[in-house]
Amino acid sequence: MHIQKKDKFIVNKPKEHCAIFGVTCNDLGFSVTKYLYQGLIALQHRGQESTGISISTPGGKIYTYKRNGLVPKVLNNKILSKYWGNVGIGHNRYATTGATGYKSTDYMQPFHFNNNEIEFSIAFNGTIANFDEIKKNMNELGRVFITDTDTEVMAQLIGSIALGTEDWPEVLKIASKLLDGSYSLILMTSKGDIYAMRDPLGFKPLCIGELKDSKKNLYFVASESCAIDVVGGILLRDVKPGEIVHLSHQKDIHSEIILKSNRTALCQFEFVYFSRPDSIIDGVSVAEVRFRLGINLAKNDPILKNPEIKENAIVVPVPDSGRSVAVGYAKEAGLPYIEGLMKNRYVHRTFIMPGQEKRKIAVREKLNPIKSIVQGKDVILLDDSIVRGTTTQQIIALLKEKGGAKRVHLRISCPPIISPCYMGIDFPTKEELIAGRLQILYGEQYLEEIQKRIGSDTILYQTIDDLTDAIGKNKNQLCLACLTGEYPLKSIQKLAEMESSIIKSRS
Amino acid sequence: MHIQKKDKFIVNKPKEHCAIFGVTCNDLGFSVTKYLYQGLIALQHRGQESTGISISTPGGKIYTYKRNGLVPKVLNNKILSKYWGNVGIGHNRYATTGATGYKSTDYMQPFHFNNNEIEFSIAFNGTIANFDEIKKNMNELGRVFITDTDTEVMAQLIGSIALGTEDWPEVLKIASKLLDGSYSLILMTSKGDIYAMRDPLGFKPLCIGELKDSKKNLYFVASESCAIDVVGGILLRDVKPGEIVHLSHQKDIHSEIILKSNRTALCQFEFVYFSRPDSIIDGVSVAEVRFRLGINLAKNDPILKNPEIKENAIVVPVPDSGRSVAVGYAKEAGLPYIEGLMKNRYVHRTFIMPGQEKRKIAVREKLNPIKSIVQGKDVILLDDSIVRGTTTQQIIALLKEKGGAKRVHLRISCPPIISPCYMGIDFPTKEELIAGRLQILYGEQYLEEIQKRIGSDTILYQTIDDLTDAIGKNKNQLCLACLTGEYPLKSIQKLAEMESSIIKSRS
Amino acid sequence: MHIQKKDKFIVNKPKEHCAIFGVTCNDLGFSVTKYLYQGLIALQHRGQESTGISISTPGGKIYTYKRNGLVPKVLNNKILSKYWGNVGIGHNRYATTGATGYKSTDYMQPFHFNNNEIEFSIAFNGTIANFDEIKKNMNELGRVFITDTDTEVMAQLIGSIALGTEDWPEVLKIASKLLDGSYSLILMTSKGDIYAMRDPLGFKPLCIGELKDSKKNLYFVASESCAIDVVGGILLRDVKPGEIVHLSHQKDIHSEIILKSNRTALCQFEFVYFSRPDSIIDGVSVAEVRFRLGINLAKNDPILKNPEIKENAIVVPVPDSGRSVAVGYAKEAGLPYIEGLMKNRYVHRTFIMPGQEKRKIAVREKLNPIKSIVQGKDVILLDDSIVRGTTTQQIIALLKEKGGAKRVHLRISCPPIISPCYMGIDFPTKEELIAGRLQILYGEQYLEEIQKRIGSDTILYQTIDDLTDAIGKNKNQLCLACLTGEYPLKSIQKLAEMESSIIKSRS
Amino acid sequence: MHIQKKDKFIVNKPKEHCAIFGVTCNDLGFSVTKYLYQGLIALQHRGQESTGISISTPGGKIYTYKRNGLVPKVLNNKILSKYWGNVGIGHNRYATTGATGYKSTDYMQPFHFNNNEIEFSIAFNGTIANFDEIKKNMNELGRVFITDTDTEVMAQLIGSIALGTEDWPEVLKIASKLLDGSYSLILMTSKGDIYAMRDPLGFKPLCIGELKDSKKNLYFVASESCAIDVVGGILLRDVKPGEIVHLSHQKDIHSEIILKSNRTALCQFEFVYFSRPDSIIDGVSVAEVRFRLGINLAKNDPILKNPEIKENAIVVPVPDSGRSVAVGYAKEAGLPYIEGLMKNRYVHRTFIMPGQEKRKIAVREKLNPIKSIVQGKDVILLDDSIVRGTTTQQIIALLKEKGGAKRVHLRISCPPIISPCYMGIDFPTKEELIAGRLQILYGEQYLEEIQKRIGSDTILYQTIDDLTDAIGKNKNQLCLACLTGEYPLKSIQKLAEMESSIIKSRS
Repeated sequence: MHIQKKDKFIVNKPKEHCAIFGVTCNDLGFSVTKYLYQGLIALQHRGQESTGISISTPGGKIYTYKRNGLVPKVLNNKILSKYWGNVGIGHNRYATTGATGYKSTDYMQPFHFNNNEIEFSIAFNGTIANFDEIKKNMNELGRVFITDTDTEVMAQLIGSIALGTEDWPEVLKIASKLLDGSYSLILMTSKGDIYAMRDPLGFKPLCIGELKDSKKNLYFVASESCAIDVVGGILLRDVKPGEIVHLSHQKDIHSEIILKSNRTALCQFEFVYFSRPDSIIDGVSVAEVRFRLGINLAKNDPILKNPEIKENAIVVPVPDSGRSVAVGYAKEAGLPYIEGLMKNRYVHRTFIMPGQEKRKIAVREKLNPIKSIVQGKDVILLDDSIVRGTTTQQIIALLKEKGGAKRVHLRISCPPIISPCYMGIDFPTKEELIAGRLQILYGEQYLEEIQKRIGSDTILYQTIDDLTDAIGKNKNQLCLACLTGEYPLKSIQKLAEMESSIIKSRS
Repeated sequence: MHIQKKDKFIVNKPKEHCAIFGVTCNDLGFSVTKYLYQGLIALQHRGQESTGISISTPGGKIYTYKRNGLVPKVLNNKILSKYWGNVGIGHNRYATTGATGYKSTDYMQPFHFNNNEIEFSIAFNGTIANFDEIKKNMNELGRVFITDTDTEVMAQLIGSIALGTEDWPEVLKIASKLLDGSYSLILMTSKGDIYAMRDPLGFKPLCIGELKDSKKNLYFVASESCAIDVVGGILLRDVKPGEIVHLSHQKDIHSEIILKSNRTALCQFEFVYFSRPDSIIDGVSVAEVRFRLGINLAKNDPILKNPEIKENAIVVPVPDSGRSVAVGYAKEAGLPYIEGLMKNRYVHRTFIMPGQEKRKIAVREKLNPIKSIVQGKDVILLDDSIVRGTTTQQIIALLKEKGGAKRVHLRISCPPIISPCYMGIDFPTKEELIAGRLQILYGEQYLEEIQKRIGSDTILYQTIDDLTDAIGKNKNQLCLACLTGEYPLKSIQKLAEMESSIIKSRS
Repeated sequence: MHIQKKDKFIVNKPKEHCAIFGVTCNDLGFSVTKYLYQGLIALQHRGQESTGISISTPGGKIYTYKRNGLVPKVLNNKILSKYWGNVGIGHNRYATTGATGYKSTDYMQPFHFNNNEIEFSIAFNGTIANFDEIKKNMNELGRVFITDTDTEVMAQLIGSIALGTEDWPEVLKIASKLLDGSYSLILMTSKGDIYAMRDPLGFKPLCIGELKDSKKNLYFVASESCAIDVVGGILLRDVKPGEIVHLSHQKDIHSEIILKSNRTALCQFEFVYFSRPDSIIDGVSVAEVRFRLGINLAKNDPILKNPEIKENAIVVPVPDSGRSVAVGYAKEAGLPYIEGLMKNRYVHRTFIMPGQEKRKIAVREKLNPIKSIVQGKDVILLDDSIVRGTTTQQIIALLKEKGGAKRVHLRISCPPIISPCYMGIDFPTKEELIAGRLQILYGEQYLEEIQKRIGSDTILYQTIDDLTDAIGKNKNQLCLACLTGEYPLKSIQKLAEMESSIIKSRS
Repeated sequence: MHIQKKDKFIVNKPKEHCAIFGVTCNDLGFSVTKYLYQGLIALQHRGQESTGISISTPGGKIYTYKRNGLVPKVLNNKILSKYWGNVGIGHNRYATTGATGYKSTDYMQPFHFNNNEIEFSIAFNGTIANFDEIKKNMNELGRVFITDTDTEVMAQLIGSIALGTEDWPEVLKIASKLLDGSYSLILMTSKGDIYAMRDPLGFKPLCIGELKDSKKNLYFVASESCAIDVVGGILLRDVKPGEIVHLSHQKDIHSEIILKSNRTALCQFEFVYFSRPDSIIDGVSVAEVRFRLGINLAKNDPILKNPEIKENAIVVPVPDSGRSVAVGYAKEAGLPYIEGLMKNRYVHRTFIMPGQEKRKIAVREKLNPIKSIVQGKDVILLDDSIVRGTTTQQIIALLKEKGGAKRVHLRISCPPIISPCYMGIDFPTKEELIAGRLQILYGEQYLEEIQKRIGSDTILYQTIDDLTDAIGKNKNQLCLACLTGEYPLKSIQKLAEMESSIIKSRS
């Protein structure tokens, strides 16, 4: 979901743009709302700003409820008790911190489309690159929009195509020919049919699952397989890139591939950071990928050949994101893994004190080095990625100044991020990406410059080849745009080049 | 703080009863509210139910604000903007979930005492064992109480002693002779003086810190040293058992020991579970204790001598509490540490589905085994303690049934908990403690019985000697009552024996 | 539209009873809702109480939305986004302030008629004089009414005639034979046909327009031509008295005259006050009429022959209604036009202070004399009409007391209003009309008496001959009933005489 | 009041930043709320976004109510009935259209300051240039801000100075030494005293008035004298630049000049556009100034010497802002004044249709040329100012294309606006000001270029000398910064030069 916004808070991590979940039960008297609760809570890491559900009733109506807040706050017992229906879809929206005005439920999902002719509800994860153009065309046909979101554009487009037809696969097929971008979506009709669709390049994950017991039979659609685990179901398979899957009580699962593409473009960052380690995406275990990324780093690490350093070294993750990779590194290196930074899990928002020291303080509320562990040590610090670099710099400073670490060796499980993402991840512009900016300014020496600015004694990134090996897919199957600057969609490539030339002209 | 309550939710972990924090600045125009915010957020793990602050102004008034909720929600910018003053104290109350009626601010701390003669505010952590008796005596003197809390009893007692005097050390000295129990407290007068006091046995931690810059000079009092780190201060020292420390702008720090005791009784569970690993309590690093507890377990572990098992073994913590000990164990054992359970950090409340399977589902929302990691493995599962045993049982079942673990070997960093705590920890009764109940029923064979019921293939607890060694203190310096049933206060010992005989008569 | 009501606020100006607007587009995929928005906002001066639209969809359904409030509030983006269709009609209802119970949407227009046989929507401007009689007859045929409006009577009558036929021109022809009164109406069928009809005497204006571009072709019907300007269309012509015009995509514009009348009775007050000056009614520019009315007044004005007065005179309009006429007067008189009264355009409602002075205060909130302009001057004050006279009296008092005007010469562009209107204008009874009442009481001297009571130094009204000359139509083409007491419909004449005799018996 | 915002709507006119009004009555039992209603409605033209009042009660408390909306909507009868008190202040905030997030009452005025020590309420009109700097200093003293407004900075500054003192004149004196910018303010204490202060240069108007009757005695403070007229009071005098006026029941009016300045800088635009014509500012009638501006234009107008044009010419104002000046012009020129453009007074918001023609449509909803008046004429079009130029261009196009005007001669009562205002008016940047931009690009030929782009046949601006003559003040008494680029405050001058050099570098 795309909203233009200006963050006034420091964004330290890329933020995923949504989670979607759907469920349908063959027992018309059974209410699936609780499964929406459980599925969405399992996907909460993909979006913490707002929570929404749409429920389809056997009587042919759709009811939608959405509010700002985490799943347990929004879907409280009152709401779970009030909303009944044997089919439902749900959505978590990511944190657009500081983007006021988007508190309106109009900006949340699912988008419940209901004009005088057509009714359906839609939840999606991704970004429509050409939404402005589609909106303009629809404006000229008299359509009026109430938000600035690509979600509404998509919904109004589908609504316009569906005028006078009920052939939903055909509607989605036509829509997908007009939509340019990344989209994993779930559409629920007022008749209680669920359609799951993934864009032809398969940028975002989407999978289906099943739960059968003696009394009832349920199907699920979810952004990640961990949600299917949590509702007690079993993972059937992923929705394929360019596939529409129809989940219906009458006909079971029915699928058709509407658009075939020579290549796919699954986001590599799903493996590196976004997805939960217990998820399996397109057949690959996220946890295993991260473990292998740690092994790769250790294999390539020159400091492990220096006995003076190795003897004095401990492997410390940046919690929580660095743990999986640190464990792999420690095992391969034969070094002790240890938690040298305490994370306060109650700090979601950071109160920023005025003055120059504010950033250090902001990090200090979240992370505190454990002096008794790191003092005098060569700390091999593992993290998943560097975006702006400011947080990493502060962590290293804390480890040295407060913790008394002898040296800090930064190891990053992802290759340098040099380009923004236009496919649904809230990365900053190239200018704000430390690797992107310094690569422009310093060329091949940019890694040394990053190391200097961040204050680490040594630095080591994953290579792109090691990354694809760890994922077990080749470069024609993944989107590596943030690492290479090469975008799998031509429309995006053009956009990225335009932005890049503006930055160059400024510097 | 003591409140009688009935939980309708399952308590799986002992819960600490509060955090306290105080600050005083020598610049009368400076407002310390933001330090209260930061100090309390660093101590949020000790209490999540309610947040409160009292502010003393240069004009000699005290203003108090307290509400249910986490620190960032209660101390929002509006409140921080409204409350000014150069001296303040704050308090986090732990979760008395389901205890309705305690939502009244009367039940929150700090307790702001203000009659027509005397005004002060008090925040404390601990339990007054003889509060019913004191209340009865004071009732007879015409005092009227509005709550059922020991906090109010303590405040009214102090208020009564202080009638007609301003010698606060003397007042506290007299009060402490009448109060039987555990108490670390901070008292703030309307003149802006802060007094920190720890009971003679020193059950609960309490420490003081300092922050000096060119413009101002601040002192802090805190339940744990991590709060002093987070506000940017340096730890001066712990408040000693039986000591009153006076923090004042005029006289700096002034201290007197009012009650000396041959022994002390620092709660062992602060090291095992409660305190943050980055805290240092009475000179001992919590993180180091936990690391040593892991080493001890590995040293004593028979399965490490079985090559078949060792070869197939991985060391998996129960997140987040088992990590520190697992790291120590893995290092000593020479085995890989790995995260085999995914924890959902957004689940605070668990939605319980009806029917018998509810407990498994409840755990499933929080923890999901990572099949690709644990499948076919001998999982050495590390946790800090077993209370009722129900959660542990479900985790082991998940690891085997969903994760496909070959065997699960449970390793606990704390010796068996067999007796309830009367000193401020929310342990259940002996009957509800799995080790307590089975020890009564099965005598020396109770560990085998625990293993059977919990479903682990082997089980190993820490020994009490190893525990005291790891802490580096002897049995006369620690409270081990929950492990031994021997209470350091005679009044409590009597209470415990009474309760125990009731249970025996029932079974 | 006729509703019986009791105003608790003082009505200072006659208020028109509604605006109607319709549009049809030949492109079935185009949504005309935005044109309804623009057309109705251009006609907002004719009604500010409620706004309503009916939309006909290509699928053959009609959807209606109406609410209290101005057009921009009711037809907000959410509504414009929700209602689609290539044909639509809309309506503004005038302010029945204080008439509670009429907040129900049942009392708003368009009236969406939908029983199990017939569906259409109707919007009209006018008053059905014999609606009580028709209602009685239909009651006897088993019809059940839910409101007290002539709108519903008209709709039920049309619905009854249409039973079993789809020949809408025939239906309307029959209806118009039964309906006695003024009515300009638009009827929209569920098939998307639009019929515009004007009563045989043509009391109320109604016109049609067109907009063609390369992609689409639109027709419009509107109460006034200014609405056609605002939607970007061109005025084709007026609907003739007694004509039915059929607007359809298949057949373009088709018309038939159903009832011919020897005379017509276009309301003179449309030119004097109601219509927007930029409208053209039955071929006559409203702005030009008003300009000529000012010229006429100056030509007849004796004070312009008094050099002492003329030298000291300024021409001041009562804003906003007096401007057009004042400009004509000033030009003819060769005197300076100047704005001597400031009008607060944000005052729609007037807060009335208790006590006798309330009326002065009420006017004071809306109008403030500009002392630097009027002080010491002979103010020639131009307004369009005098109804009760109270406001005019207060304005004159303000000009003299606060503004310091030497003399005030009142000049009125309309002849004295002596009789109520039964044709759709909210005039008070003859008793409440200052000219009507004083004519009964003082006979021919009533003008001197008005001058005395109103506090002006001289007074001059338009003559009826000058009025018809300015409009450019003769007395057989206009309704002058409020000026002459002679009503063009016999049924009304009888009603008026009855009411008049009641008044005489009272005085 | 200063808020950073991004308008998404086209701003066609500079918008004033607020109105303030205060009243105090010597009868403690009398409630002044109704006077706040009347005073604020008279000042509604200075701000339409939100309305707020603070009431001080004889008991020493302050109650504040503020909401989005016009005065009559916010101060409805329920509110007027609920809020009682003999002293009160009020505020209208200007329209920050589209600036969502500012719907919070925190962003409205009066700002009711109430911490644990001090209580007062403040309403102000102006802009504090150095508010960021003051905020930073106060942050370092521990103050926490909840908005981004200079209002809150001013309130917190005053609150900090007032700590421990009740000498309000002294407090305001100190505050005004620290505040750099334009500010007319009213401060009300919890004791019911009212202090009115105007900044040393007197940028914004502020005046006091009185109302005495047999029973009570009232004092008023108002942004403009028209508000004192409307409440029925008499204007006493203006508050002088740098003066603090204390209105109190005990001591009547007491005043002191705290800061003397060699020059003053009353905003010229108050005379040209902002203030109501019936107001008198610093002794000068706004209506008279505007009349003289029209006379000046006619005196300098070369086309009046061309008989061919003059014979065919009519003087047409852009309603409502061009009327006053058009009247003066017409009189001096001896030409007929006539209303040739119809304004829809119900259009506050404009619905924008997509596509290139949207701007024309937007203007078309508001203004429609009256063809019968302007056709074939030389239209001398009078307006007060040109800001961006887009609206003017569209009006001229409408007059020619729709109205059939032969030629349009644009006459502007204000000299070219070439520089933005930093003192409280919502002017766009120099780059967006048509005169500013074209002066940079075309130098001395910029007027010809404006004429070409705007599409008028001739153009004539007021000269600066004629403007100051018409106002009757010299250049050392007025702020002419938007016309000359020379700012009366050095801090602003620097800011303006910085911005200007950025623009130059871009073009």
